[in-house]
Amino acid sequence: MSPPLLLLLRGAAGARGALRSCCARATSRRGLSSSSGGGAGAGAGGGPGRRSLLAGLAGAAAALAGLGLVRRAEMVSRRPEEEEEGDELSRRCRDFMAPPVSGLRELRSRRQEMRSLMEMLIMETQSQVCRALAQVDRGASFTVDRWERKEGGGGISCVLQDGHIFEKAGVNVSVVFGHLSEEAAQQMRSRGKSLKAKNGKLPFCAMGVSSVIHPKNPHVPTIHFNYRYFEIEEADGTKQWWFGGGTDLTPTYLNEEDAVHFHKTLKEACDQHNPELYPKYKKWCDDYFYIKHRGERRGIGGIFFDDLDSPSKEEVFQFVQSCAKAIVPCYIPIVKKHSRDAFTPEEKLWQQLRRGRYVEFNLVYDRGTKFGLATPGSRIESILMSLPLTARWEYMHTPPENSREAEILEVLRHPKDWVH
Amino acid sequence: MSPPLLLLLRGAAGARGALRSCCARATSRRGLSSSSGGGAGAGAGGGPGRRSLLAGLAGAAAALAGLGLVRRAEMVSRRPEEEEEGDELSRRCRDFMAPPVSGLRELRSRRQEMRSLMEMLIMETQSQVCRALAQVDRGASFTVDRWERKEGGGGISCVLQDGHIFEKAGVNVSVVFGHLSEEAAQQMRSRGKSLKAKNGKLPFCAMGVSSVIHPKNPHVPTIHFNYRYFEIEEADGTKQWWFGGGTDLTPTYLNEEDAVHFHKTLKEACDQHNPELYPKYKKWCDDYFYIKHRGERRGIGGIFFDDLDSPSKEEVFQFVQSCAKAIVPCYIPIVKKHSRDAFTPEEKLWQQLRRGRYVEFNLVYDRGTKFGLATPGSRIESILMSLPLTARWEYMHTPPENSREAEILEVLRHPKDWVH
Repeated sequence: MSPPLLLLLRGAAGARGALRSCCARATSRRGLSSSSGGGAGAGAGGGPGRRSLLAGLAGAAAALAGLGLVRRAEMVSRRPEEEEEGDELSRRCRDFMAPPVSGLRELRSRRQEMRSLMEMLIMETQSQVCRALAQVDRGASFTVDRWERKEGGGGISCVLQDGHIFEKAGVNVSVVFGHLSEEAAQQMRSRGKSLKAKNGKLPFCAMGVSSVIHPKNPHVPTIHFNYRYFEIEEADGTKQWWFGGGTDLTPTYLNEEDAVHFHKTLKEACDQHNPELYPKYKKWCDDYFYIKHRGERRGIGGIFFDDLDSPSKEEVFQFVQSCAKAIVPCYIPIVKKHSRDAFTPEEKLWQQLRRGRYVEFNLVYDRGTKFGLATPGSRIESILMSLPLTARWEYMHTPPENSREAEILEVLRHPKDWVH
Repeated sequence: MSPPLLLLLRGAAGARGALRSCCARATSRRGLSSSSGGGAGAGAGGGPGRRSLLAGLAGAAAALAGLGLVRRAEMVSRRPEEEEEGDELSRRCRDFMAPPVSGLRELRSRRQEMRSLMEMLIMETQSQVCRALAQVDRGASFTVDRWERKEGGGGISCVLQDGHIFEKAGVNVSVVFGHLSEEAAQQMRSRGKSLKAKNGKLPFCAMGVSSVIHPKNPHVPTIHFNYRYFEIEEADGTKQWWFGGGTDLTPTYLNEEDAVHFHKTLKEACDQHNPELYPKYKKWCDDYFYIKHRGERRGIGGIFFDDLDSPSKEEVFQFVQSCAKAIVPCYIPIVKKHSRDAFTPEEKLWQQLRRGRYVEFNLVYDRGTKFGLATPGSRIESILMSLPLTARWEYMHTPPENSREAEILEVLRHPKDWVH
């Protein structure tokens, strides 16, 4: 998980269940009044002509309620204009893992604003990735937790644990808003720009999709990605905004062909916008995912950027969209290629030791994780979803010279350029 | 591992071998000139009448050299007064896991100074604990790494991995000295007292014994202890000194009888010196080992203290000595009692989840670990020796109500008083 998004989440204990493929329209924020302390909500409104859309959601909500896992949600009637069938937003929402956090009505009312465009993109990315993973993992299903933040917003955590192919795969969306102290707002920007508040508080909005996918087979690499958007309104009404994100790969063993495929796919996504982006963000990625006390990178990199606020909101969004669309094609072919590879107990052991390093990076260095853990009321389970199911630490473990273990270590110590 | 001792260690890659029960006298610092970059040294001097003492060391050194694991060490002849047989220091050193870091000659030359008294105590504690563990673990042997710090001092790390009883047990001694910046010196004191340096540098000496013992059986608890001593000389020649330390227990399942035995043994050690110490240090321990983002303590506590500099150096040393002597009796009976307890796969799984929490505490909160990892050139393997062999993270794991897992969680959330 990368820079500070999750730090802002004051999580309610999330509902848990098998919510998949349901539509958003029935859970506009106005239509949901959860019990105190926040809670997961999935309310279904009545009215003709929308039965098919609501069926999935109502069924899922009932299933959750049956498990005692859904918090109380009041049903309220909707105005007809909120429930227009067949518009593009509703159509896109149909495939989401859960209704969007802001609710369809609100998204529709401000459909041209970046907040809405980005929320749709992160929901879509979550859905595309989860579906691609579930398909590869012979239909394994995701646990979908919907949680609310008392001060505004909430999130949807999708987790697949102990599948056939994936040991632990989490894809998390969060959309939070409210007011920040000047100090907290400043911490959110990696470059630490100063922000002027009215009465010491800054209205803000932060959203993102964040994921870590740990496969079982040591020949299938771990992937992490995170795309995020921030808005802060200063005292004089000017809005600061910026995007951040990245996708990076952590193999247990080096496979040069995979490394080239991964980086090439990311490079192509970047090159559509500006040929300078990939080399710059590739280096930023190598620099960011550095386990300083080990002198090693966490993995073989990818791209990473933060505080991106030029040339324009629309252009950066287009770029982020291209990156998000590259996730499935850069990773899934590698999973398919190796998920049936044979492996030895020694290879599994080396994977576990590398998982230990993954834990070290995430707990010691990752900005998002650190801020998240330090923020009272964060949804810890969503933040630490990034940790592997299992990890191992052996004292003084050193792979033999010229081994395949030493080969990957060499690349982690001296990052390579995979595409030119 | 507790507050900043290891942060100071600029480690040379340590020698590795089966060095056990050898005498110190042949490796005074003067007698050792290691190759560039520091290295482990074990030189044996010639001369009549000391054959029996040197046999163990020479044998071990040869064994290490045979394994290619001992760095080049020059042999130098010793003066007869350095090699007196049968004095108390040599006698005590005979049982150490390796020669003391400062060398017998130097310890002898300043035998009344606290630096020497404390080094002997930490070496003795290391030896007593390792021997007690090896005895319980049917003679399992420790890997003994001796390492040097380029700027002054070094350490001895003893690690038992994958024994019958213990999954990973590390007992680490370090004795380091040199010069510190005012800033670094200040960081070493938890209360952050200001220290005045001459030309910006403060001569210092820091030493301690630190250990984490993770057993295999989930009914045998993990123990951690650390006892340390610091000296800093200010510009006007005044010496500041203080002690720190503690012993704490982390069970996977609660056993009230064990908890009472553990705390009672520590209380008795404290009460010999002042009845106010145990309650104060018991609370400090509960406060220190707090995993804030989980709202849980790491374990069921014990004692913890830092910056202890009154009533007098000698009295504090006596207290620390009592605490160190209490380690074996507070822990080993519990190990013996439970090491053959039957356990289920579910109990092993719960242990692994609790190991995950142990990792979270050590990497996110522990002062010693954090400073150590942030200090370039630290001996990372000795710092991270505290991490368990294996750990596990499951998304949203919650034990059932009234289960034994819920029982220990309750105590970790609301610490109890075990003795009055």
